[in-house]
Amino acid sequence: MKVALIGLGSVGRGVAEMLAKKDLGLVLTGIADSKSAFMDPAGIDIARVLAHKKKNGSCGDQNLTAEDIIKKADYDALIEVTPTNALSGEPAIGYMKAALNRKKHVVTSNKGPIALAQKELRAMARKKGVALRYEATVAGAIPVMHTLEHGLAGNEILALYGVLNGTCNYILTRMAAEGLTYEQALLEAREMGYAEADPTYDVQGIDAAIKLVILANTIWDNGVKLGDVDRTGIDLLTPDALRLADEEGCTIRLIAEANPKKHLLRVSPRILDKNHPLVFEGTLNALTLETDMAKEITLIGRGAGSIETASAIIGDLLYIRDRYVERA
Amino acid sequence: MKVALIGLGSVGRGVAEMLAKKDLGLVLTGIADSKSAFMDPAGIDIARVLAHKKKNGSCGDQNLTAEDIIKKADYDALIEVTPTNALSGEPAIGYMKAALNRKKHVVTSNKGPIALAQKELRAMARKKGVALRYEATVAGAIPVMHTLEHGLAGNEILALYGVLNGTCNYILTRMAAEGLTYEQALLEAREMGYAEADPTYDVQGIDAAIKLVILANTIWDNGVKLGDVDRTGIDLLTPDALRLADEEGCTIRLIAEANPKKHLLRVSPRILDKNHPLVFEGTLNALTLETDMAKEITLIGRGAGSIETASAIIGDLLYIRDRYVERA
Repeated sequence: MKVALIGLGSVGRGVAEMLAKKDLGLVLTGIADSKSAFMDPAGIDIARVLAHKKKNGSCGDQNLTAEDIIKKADYDALIEVTPTNALSGEPAIGYMKAALNRKKHVVTSNKGPIALAQKELRAMARKKGVALRYEATVAGAIPVMHTLEHGLAGNEILALYGVLNGTCNYILTRMAAEGLTYEQALLEAREMGYAEADPTYDVQGIDAAIKLVILANTIWDNGVKLGDVDRTGIDLLTPDALRLADEEGCTIRLIAEANPKKHLLRVSPRILDKNHPLVFEGTLNALTLETDMAKEITLIGRGAGSIETASAIIGDLLYIRDRYVERA
Repeated sequence: MKVALIGLGSVGRGVAEMLAKKDLGLVLTGIADSKSAFMDPAGIDIARVLAHKKKNGSCGDQNLTAEDIIKKADYDALIEVTPTNALSGEPAIGYMKAALNRKKHVVTSNKGPIALAQKELRAMARKKGVALRYEATVAGAIPVMHTLEHGLAGNEILALYGVLNGTCNYILTRMAAEGLTYEQALLEAREMGYAEADPTYDVQGIDAAIKLVILANTIWDNGVKLGDVDRTGIDLLTPDALRLADEEGCTIRLIAEANPKKHLLRVSPRILDKNHPLVFEGTLNALTLETDMAKEITLIGRGAGSIETASAIIGDLLYIRDRYVERA
């Protein structure tokens, strides 16, 4: 199966490295970063392109763009991993539509477009007879979408709750363990590379809310939007709040939860017993699915990271390869 | 898709009830318990058969047997959920072979046959172009096999460790929480319905070892057998051992673990930090998969139960329906 890769940040680099390293039957025929692009229908020498990018800051020909690759390259599946834009979803939404229009499968890690335009993109993929897969948009390496699609097939999903932002979990872990203030723990998270220079999206619960919207639409197809999420961040939490929780054998975690029957769609700091399955340290993510037959299933794993996110993308690509391309 | 159900104990009843309750596109055309059988190519009235079984102790015609259903009924997939026999695997192995020989898909919850004859049965299914699926054999409702097959596709599984026996986890939880002796906790587990009259398989780690063998062969195809598992049970553990662990902020759990590079295949009581993801209370099961890309993924859920196990079986059936039958 031939694939084209749009975006060469941390995730894109991880995907490219794994395509080069592993014998997965996936041939890279097009690649683009924000400044340049390169295509070769016979298969790109990934090591050479990555070395070029490292040396010159761009991966290919500066007269070519991502659009050129998407519209002209010879590929079966587009891997769209450009930086996310939660407000407009662009340019990624346009990229995906262009690929779907050419009847190309699309795999993305891009949260903004899927939170904003999941219904439209899914309908477009269905109409064109191709796949739109976005395992990597929620909880990094944890195969949430595959679990919903296959592992729990036949189950009704009644509700879900989870820790969907590793940065917040790290900050809360450190506030509880060392009695740090929010500001101190945030500074530490930045030094560790767990928080962005502008941490707003993480600490105000926006990132978790975006993932919650993606999950809710995937499971219940209920057309919820980011603005529908009842959202409280962790940036106003005091060490006293954590100390009081601790005295009761509890701690505080930023929990995303959805329960359509209770009209619940919320991201907020919650007091949990320390033995609760969603209480763990560090930057991990977790999700509990409440179902009618399997009852509660909890998945825990890495919510971010270059290779970890590549794992989710490659899982989607191999699924498409087995399901569509080999049978074509 | 037409299915035939062999075995009407707790799991078989759960499957039958879910087939009757849910509109899954699965039609039951044959059914058998240990004393009788019944077939109807137009679809069996499940409620009537279950009521008959409840009233008379048998589900159908006492002149018909499971073999008759397997060899003569009109079905696409056999659901084999007879009692497990860890020594011979029979009669279930024979049932499965007879169905595979007829080019029928097989779905089973039967641990013994899969631990004993996985390689042979898989080869037979491959040769006949049908599926052999056994999600329900390991960790009940937790979709371990689907996660290995799809969610973590492309990953190399380096090692695994887990809590694969809920009875032992319950006994250890109660010994630690209340300072009970092993005998007291076992008695309580029996009263709660969590332990069999003969608890040998559970408490000596045999049940966990069987599941470990199934996982190892599924992942690494390394032909390991039950006798290859380095196995220690929990039946010799003292309250003192748990108290000493507790003083160090730890507790004891029966852990099944495999790591082929370290030649490790073991079930034994292990001292774990109370914050370890595999430390939880009650009868839950959990499995951590260590992989090259996704790193550690932990799955937690119900390891037993009629409807919970039915969830795993139905997931397998729907996978076969989507993958093979609809496309045929």
